[in-house]
Amino acid sequence: MTVTADMLRTSPAETGFDEAALARCIDACLACAQACTACADACLGEESVAELRSCITSNLACADVCTATAAVLSRQVGYNAEVTRALLTACAAACRHCGEECAQHADMHDHCGLCADACRACEQACAALLAG
Amino acid sequence: MTVTADMLRTSPAETGFDEAALARCIDACLACAQACTACADACLGEESVAELRSCITSNLACADVCTATAAVLSRQVGYNAEVTRALLTACAAACRHCGEECAQHADMHDHCGLCADACRACEQACAALLAG
Amino acid sequence: MTVTADMLRTSPAETGFDEAALARCIDACLACAQACTACADACLGEESVAELRSCITSNLACADVCTATAAVLSRQVGYNAEVTRALLTACAAACRHCGEECAQHADMHDHCGLCADACRACEQACAALLAG
Amino acid sequence: MTVTADMLRTSPAETGFDEAALARCIDACLACAQACTACADACLGEESVAELRSCITSNLACADVCTATAAVLSRQVGYNAEVTRALLTACAAACRHCGEECAQHADMHDHCGLCADACRACEQACAALLAG
Repeated sequence: MTVTADMLRTSPAETGFDEAALARCIDACLACAQACTACADACLGEESVAELRSCITSNLACADVCTATAAVLSRQVGYNAEVTRALLTACAAACRHCGEECAQHADMHDHCGLCADACRACEQACAALLAG
Repeated sequence: MTVTADMLRTSPAETGFDEAALARCIDACLACAQACTACADACLGEESVAELRSCITSNLACADVCTATAAVLSRQVGYNAEVTRALLTACAAACRHCGEECAQHADMHDHCGLCADACRACEQACAALLAG
Repeated sequence: MTVTADMLRTSPAETGFDEAALARCIDACLACAQACTACADACLGEESVAELRSCITSNLACADVCTATAAVLSRQVGYNAEVTRALLTACAAACRHCGEECAQHADMHDHCGLCADACRACEQACAALLAG
Repeated sequence: MTVTADMLRTSPAETGFDEAALARCIDACLACAQACTACADACLGEESVAELRSCITSNLACADVCTATAAVLSRQVGYNAEVTRALLTACAAACRHCGEECAQHADMHDHCGLCADACRACEQACAALLAG
């Protein structure tokens, strides 16, 4: 769907990250932000909304952090390692927390199961970049 | 990559939009936001940056509007047609303007060509929803 | 609090909007985005959360649109009137809808009353720019 | 301008942060995001744009992180300390880096001086919350 990898390849600058891992992380952040936004909404529509409050808040926070991380990672000019690494650390934390919240409701709500998967994939993509 | 279609399908609510067209539009908004963010950055890194100012600004505006549109379209609970249609209209306008800007530099810069394609795809996806 | 007016004044470019009205609208968008984000959260914490679903969704949409509008209005280089006006129209619609939703709960919840005021102020600031 | 403090006060939940320091930090994030967005644009409009590339990128990253931080801090229901602290750390890093970049151009460009002040204020507000 996205042209993320091609955008990285055609940029006149680069960051030092492995380009394939970087593209995977950007796409994982976009997919996770969408899943979290949709999961917050779906939880809000459930009869048991009162029991899903923590899930909704962790979804909203995770969407915000993933959106910011996707944007920051998409820029290679004037790349700053300290800021990027701190944001990746925050993004991995938000994804881990939200993934754990959603996993608790995965048996009851398919959207929580799908969202937990997206969170775990994004957490791993952030961790891979941080380790690289 | 994304689980957008599955998130829409597993939601307890719906909007009245054709679900496949809605999923396509959300994914087109995410891809366009990423392409525009990366294209603004790549233009900034070009030697000819001074001639790419309008392209960079239209990229930044288009990324902001596409990000907001992807989020609003991802919510089905308490859906409001007037707000959604006004935002889709703004998104189509931002994509059309940015696509035209980028197309002017596509011969010189591959990132502008790729971004122009992403903008046109998103403009068409917004128009398809508005017409549906 | 913000230095919005000073940032506009010290920019090498301008948009044609009255600069004081533009600064007021940017600040109103920022204040409304914050109020809507906080009101969505406060509604989520109320015992009557199940009755506040539409309020929460309209808060989230309004926050997204106001955040994008504040960013687009903050840029003066390569200003595009058509995109800006379409986005101001969407922002006014989001604020009007959210203000009306919140006003229905203002007697019960002070955060809804405060948020309704922020929405109305932002709707009026957008309308003033569109009329200017 | 904002009603941030009143929104925190009228919420049914709380985070454990000192409420006045929390309101100051949210408002500093909003003001910094606006200043950074406007400074990136003003730098783009300067004749010396080619020398301001790192400043523009650090502005864009700082705006993204501050916007996400303002939103996450505005939510008190289901508050998660680990995610919030990691994001505050990233926000302080982005503000420090951007403030240092902008300070280098403050003699030449008033918008960079104003933006450096907004970055420093936000960095301090984040540090104050982290220390609290």
